[in-house]
Amino acid sequence: MLDKKNMAILLDGTKVAASILDRIKNTIKEGELTPSLAIVLCGEKPESLLYTTMKQKKATEIGITTKIHRFPEKVSQEELCLAITELNPQVDGIIIQLPLPKHLDQTVILNSIELLKDVDGLTTESLGRVLKGDEETAPATPRGIIKLLEEYNLPVKGKKITIINHSNILGKPLAMMLTNRGATVTICHEHTVELTSHTKQADILISGIGIPQSITGDMIKEGAVIFDVGISKVGDKIRGDVHGEEVQQKAAYLTPVPGGVGPVTVAMLLEKVVAVHCKKKTVKFIV
Amino acid sequence: MLDKKNMAILLDGTKVAASILDRIKNTIKEGELTPSLAIVLCGEKPESLLYTTMKQKKATEIGITTKIHRFPEKVSQEELCLAITELNPQVDGIIIQLPLPKHLDQTVILNSIELLKDVDGLTTESLGRVLKGDEETAPATPRGIIKLLEEYNLPVKGKKITIINHSNILGKPLAMMLTNRGATVTICHEHTVELTSHTKQADILISGIGIPQSITGDMIKEGAVIFDVGISKVGDKIRGDVHGEEVQQKAAYLTPVPGGVGPVTVAMLLEKVVAVHCKKKTVKFIV
Repeated sequence: MLDKKNMAILLDGTKVAASILDRIKNTIKEGELTPSLAIVLCGEKPESLLYTTMKQKKATEIGITTKIHRFPEKVSQEELCLAITELNPQVDGIIIQLPLPKHLDQTVILNSIELLKDVDGLTTESLGRVLKGDEETAPATPRGIIKLLEEYNLPVKGKKITIINHSNILGKPLAMMLTNRGATVTICHEHTVELTSHTKQADILISGIGIPQSITGDMIKEGAVIFDVGISKVGDKIRGDVHGEEVQQKAAYLTPVPGGVGPVTVAMLLEKVVAVHCKKKTVKFIV
Repeated sequence: MLDKKNMAILLDGTKVAASILDRIKNTIKEGELTPSLAIVLCGEKPESLLYTTMKQKKATEIGITTKIHRFPEKVSQEELCLAITELNPQVDGIIIQLPLPKHLDQTVILNSIELLKDVDGLTTESLGRVLKGDEETAPATPRGIIKLLEEYNLPVKGKKITIINHSNILGKPLAMMLTNRGATVTICHEHTVELTSHTKQADILISGIGIPQSITGDMIKEGAVIFDVGISKVGDKIRGDVHGEEVQQKAAYLTPVPGGVGPVTVAMLLEKVVAVHCKKKTVKFIV
């Protein structure tokens, strides 16, 4: 039988997100604001359609006018870039749903977004700024993780943090952001030898592998904070990287999947849309 | 008495740099090329003046027309940005000697350099590209370190690498570049707790602390590769971070100071100037 008293505290992303979204909703209503978001979707991938619809639903709920701009799988790079360039002056934020069809140059497409409208934080300029310590246009998922750390008063400075992910949208910018906050960060990935030697010494472990139950109890430090950013579909269920039963008995804090980093990421993204809108209107934005 | 047989092989930066510079010199001569470099120097700091003069001398030796553009310590941001903007179309590369006077916004000044002319690799766009894996305009010192690794056939993929430095010109971009090559990188700095636990497990250790003899023998792994990027003036001598006597007996490879990373960094920088020139003239550049 599990000893519930000694189990990890779950970092409740759903609750944190709801609170952020609630505040944004009020800001929009009280300020009679009209923020707008464009979501660009290429092709017919069911998961991509699901994610964009979900973002649109959340955005609409809180008062952000949101349109999904759909393009065929075979859209040309020129056509897509032109469409984004035309969207730039019309909206407060643009999201390009990834992954893009393989024939398109992702960097070129993303860089068509005007810096200020890059609410997902994935243009080259945004990432360069993150490296330099200017996080105003930082990527949404790393911002979601940092938001959760802040909400639960979990300190970062001087902590050993291991990130298992070295993508441009998660591992690399997050490593920069945590380094900027004084953490000692190690970036692991598929070429890492002796992964457990890195996970076991981590005060904070952030896993974005995408293999269900791959982070087991023996891999983590007693009392660690565990962020599970892996998302896999197992049957009709969404699963994270963490072996929940084992890790919950050893970690101090753990993000559940679903209901952990995911909802906070979406909230950070929508918060950004409203912040851009307020900046444009020179309205003070307090969230 | 030291056992010379068991001592670390010195990574001879002077030799590597000389070979690169020799090849560039021939390329310039044979191609009748006219590459040009502008060095921007603000104020009267003796070290800054020394470094810029040294770069000018090296550049001139191999056939790069080089001019030092000097500005008073109290130059205004507007004046300096305007001067750089005017230099952009006139030269193949621009270097801003750092540090800049405190009243100037370093990011704004650096970003006045046109991306292609950013031979030092310090604009926000250049750093964003490095994070994303496009290293064409990567910073010179990290490129110097990687050049030395390549010249001595020292593999990086799967290696544990610890970097003690988290600056925008060294630690952070280098961490990205080594991660891009499949190394498992840890970034340490002044807030790192138990520094030795990170240095001792490193197959490759890169130190850019700036405290002479701070990396002692007991801090490193037997057979490690040690890059000493710290530079301090002790009396009238230049000293690195590494306690040479101790570390040489335990490491497999070590960069000396002076004569290690420094000269290769300058060579990488000048190589870049010529590469930009060739690109502009659509001459094939083979170095």
